[in-house]
Amino acid sequence: MLSPREPFMRQKPTILDRRIVATSRLFCVEELKLRFSNGVERTYERLASKGTGYGAVMIVAMLDADHAVLVEEYCGGTDAYELSLPKGLIEPGEDVLAAAERELKEEAGFGARQLEHLTELSLSPGYMSQKIQVVLATDLYEERLEGDEPEPMRVDRINLRELSSLAQNPQFTEGRALAALYLARDLLTLRGAFLA
Amino acid sequence: MLSPREPFMRQKPTILDRRIVATSRLFCVEELKLRFSNGVERTYERLASKGTGYGAVMIVAMLDADHAVLVEEYCGGTDAYELSLPKGLIEPGEDVLAAAERELKEEAGFGARQLEHLTELSLSPGYMSQKIQVVLATDLYEERLEGDEPEPMRVDRINLRELSSLAQNPQFTEGRALAALYLARDLLTLRGAFLA
Repeated sequence: MLSPREPFMRQKPTILDRRIVATSRLFCVEELKLRFSNGVERTYERLASKGTGYGAVMIVAMLDADHAVLVEEYCGGTDAYELSLPKGLIEPGEDVLAAAERELKEEAGFGARQLEHLTELSLSPGYMSQKIQVVLATDLYEERLEGDEPEPMRVDRINLRELSSLAQNPQFTEGRALAALYLARDLLTLRGAFLA
Repeated sequence: MLSPREPFMRQKPTILDRRIVATSRLFCVEELKLRFSNGVERTYERLASKGTGYGAVMIVAMLDADHAVLVEEYCGGTDAYELSLPKGLIEPGEDVLAAAERELKEEAGFGARQLEHLTELSLSPGYMSQKIQVVLATDLYEERLEGDEPEPMRVDRINLRELSSLAQNPQFTEGRALAALYLARDLLTLRGAFLA
């Protein structure tokens, strides 16, 4: 049974105490002691990345009406080469769209004459605060910038008609990248730029 | 320019050293010293969740041909009530589909007569190993199980025609949940169970 719509936002839990319980070069774990509005108390942990103070960006870059750019890079989390969208951290003072074009040039060797912000996605809001900005890049041209990658990424492409199959490819697993590709497809379909 | 297809998988970096550099009740950060096949050396960090040894599951539960269940819960990572799909950890010895139905009963108050595994999604493979199993649940019936939630979740629904708008709702941000909804819509469309 669906819940009745509530007239106001729910009352958030009170944070009784918060402290840093673990820290490394890149990460920091904060413990939160919470009291929910019904009186129940819980201890949560949440994770912050130290290097993401200015946010991050992920790019759906269209090579033509049907195909988006994918890049393959070594992923430390899974110890495997994985396919995903070009992405990276926004630098201090850098605009979201400028960061998107820089990352696209560094990782895939393309600039874009058209860049637009689609939405913001979170990773796992239950215990992480990280957000990523999704940018659609069209009208591409070849231009490479030197980035901080340890080795060149392999550049590949995906037809937007094949997103269901892409989700079955064990080399492509990143949920937010799949979401970004679907969002771009929806928008391009709505505009008549992509025919499903 | 797209890279030529390589005849073999790329040679993964050699892990020269690995050690735990930070640990908390729920998380553990591991440092990896890597040497890439071109000789470049880098130090990466990756994050492991201690409580996810048996994996996790996320459920797209269809109330009818058009609407999927959403739940609203307090999220420690963002300190906000967020809408997402029902989800949770798989318990030791528990089957993926059984875990999906249990979480659906605990969080949303529905059982399902049909459950099927759609795919596996990762969070952020660059520095996390976490994966989540996506399950489609159909033919629902009302049944509530008591879970470990600190307070009842508000249960809501989304029309699969409105996923682009959902992505613009600041209360719904989780990338992998959006990907799961799109995947379910693609599959149901292919089967003729959903008309776009």
